[in-house]
Amino acid sequence: MVGIKDIAKEAGVSISTVSYALNGSSKVTEETRERIKAIAEKLDYVPNMAARTLKRQHTNIIGVYLADYGGSFYGELLDGIKKGLAVFDFEMIVCSGEKSHLFLPERMVDGAIVLDWTFRTQEIQQFADRGHHVVVLDRKIGHENIRKVLLDNKGGATLAISEMVAKGTKFVYLLTGSSKAYDSQQRLEASLKELNRFSIPHETIEGDFTEPSGYEAAKQIMEKKHKLPIDIFAFNDEMAVGMYKYFEKTNYVIGKDVRIIGFDNIEIGEFLLPKLSTISYSKHRWGMLAAEKIVQLIQGMETEDEHIYTTLINGDSF
Amino acid sequence: MVGIKDIAKEAGVSISTVSYALNGSSKVTEETRERIKAIAEKLDYVPNMAARTLKRQHTNIIGVYLADYGGSFYGELLDGIKKGLAVFDFEMIVCSGEKSHLFLPERMVDGAIVLDWTFRTQEIQQFADRGHHVVVLDRKIGHENIRKVLLDNKGGATLAISEMVAKGTKFVYLLTGSSKAYDSQQRLEASLKELNRFSIPHETIEGDFTEPSGYEAAKQIMEKKHKLPIDIFAFNDEMAVGMYKYFEKTNYVIGKDVRIIGFDNIEIGEFLLPKLSTISYSKHRWGMLAAEKIVQLIQGMETEDEHIYTTLINGDSF
Repeated sequence: MVGIKDIAKEAGVSISTVSYALNGSSKVTEETRERIKAIAEKLDYVPNMAARTLKRQHTNIIGVYLADYGGSFYGELLDGIKKGLAVFDFEMIVCSGEKSHLFLPERMVDGAIVLDWTFRTQEIQQFADRGHHVVVLDRKIGHENIRKVLLDNKGGATLAISEMVAKGTKFVYLLTGSSKAYDSQQRLEASLKELNRFSIPHETIEGDFTEPSGYEAAKQIMEKKHKLPIDIFAFNDEMAVGMYKYFEKTNYVIGKDVRIIGFDNIEIGEFLLPKLSTISYSKHRWGMLAAEKIVQLIQGMETEDEHIYTTLINGDSF
Repeated sequence: MVGIKDIAKEAGVSISTVSYALNGSSKVTEETRERIKAIAEKLDYVPNMAARTLKRQHTNIIGVYLADYGGSFYGELLDGIKKGLAVFDFEMIVCSGEKSHLFLPERMVDGAIVLDWTFRTQEIQQFADRGHHVVVLDRKIGHENIRKVLLDNKGGATLAISEMVAKGTKFVYLLTGSSKAYDSQQRLEASLKELNRFSIPHETIEGDFTEPSGYEAAKQIMEKKHKLPIDIFAFNDEMAVGMYKYFEKTNYVIGKDVRIIGFDNIEIGEFLLPKLSTISYSKHRWGMLAAEKIVQLIQGMETEDEHIYTTLINGDSF
């Protein structure tokens, strides 16, 4: 089997130079890297990560744990994480499901970024106790090996309800995500607080953050006794899109008979007719910050928790 | 350290029952699984994947290799793969970048699904030579350990050009993806063949499958000497969206002065005004089939290459 030594010999450079070149380190010039890569290829070299891992005890790979891949929400967030990690010469793998939790104790990943309500807090805590580093995006948890980059869900939900109040709402339907999801819990808590503050009657419908659940909820509302306008705060835009799809088939005009505010500002929202009013924040920045935090944790640098703040985008749907 | 034996003892069941329960096998009832999981949790048990891997030689995890996460294209495909794998009690991790190629020789994944033009064919071949199983979605490669699930790019491109010819096009701009991408190469080849068949003049502009590259291409076209209508076949919908964004700022009316056909039928397309004409296929089915093939390969079952066929969606943009 061809080793890194053989490449060094053939290239007439040191073993560390070959290692730098193949690991994408900036310590060698692009020219050298290209030359060494060509030689490695010629010699049919396959790096042995097992050996590398034993020696270096790190892989420069971060595990990103998500509950789901559906919808267009994740593309931007993952792109942010990927670009943020690339700055530090880290890569990511995106994991979904319990089996891949074990990449952590196996040290196939150097750390984890978690936005996955199915990943139990207790398990995350256990990993942290054993010295693994984790950045969580979806829960409150304190530990020296854990940092939080949380979305200001409460601020966002409060903005949405305030807008509804300012526009004279008389009754609000709250379309939530899964009751187990932290983001949904936070949005609900803040919404209820604000609605109660202004004594506005309301009803909660449980969705699951998917477009079909928005469609179903719209159907449910139509079947109820209701007055116009029907005012809805959908806890994410995917569900708002599902509602559009339903109401478009009725005689109700969105923005007039049915008024909707969403959450997330996904790209489709701006193409909807009427344009969707929604709560916005930078998913890209969220990802970049999560990437920065996990690398800083791993490298033993000081690093603080962070918040991602929200704004209201005024569309024509409310 | 607590082992699987301790759990079995505490639960009063056999070691295999504990193993089935913790590995999500259907050989135990949900009730037993819950009880054993509770005991495992109580005892602070952390499975040791290294030991498990050495023993079982498989992890029931498939690596899905993608070049990129941006855009809304991948959500549906990944969802299809995930659901397809779940049927066989497999999970997936999504990998991007060279470092994670080594999950294969490390046997942290049991096989790979590749839609990543940066993953070199030679390297895939080497992995296959060493007994690893791979399903490719983006290239022609023959090997007993490799299966292909390929999109009928040529059929789709031919459909698009035929539609343009039927609607009296006099000149066609072809907006391609990266020249290294298999899908783009195939779409270009078939488009040129069809255009030449009808002697229709054309010009090729290289994009990179992203929305900004569509925006840039539209700008470039506007700066050229051109007659109306401007007819464009964008090799994916993301780029078509970029073009919409540019032309919306001009006096040109899409569907009349500028006519566009896209490829992929992403969700945004149907919300565009006018609705985008595009080439459609089931990304979900593509993912499901890829999942099925890789599991069949791993389990040593007979399995054939497959094609995903395309249809034309008539919007109002052409």
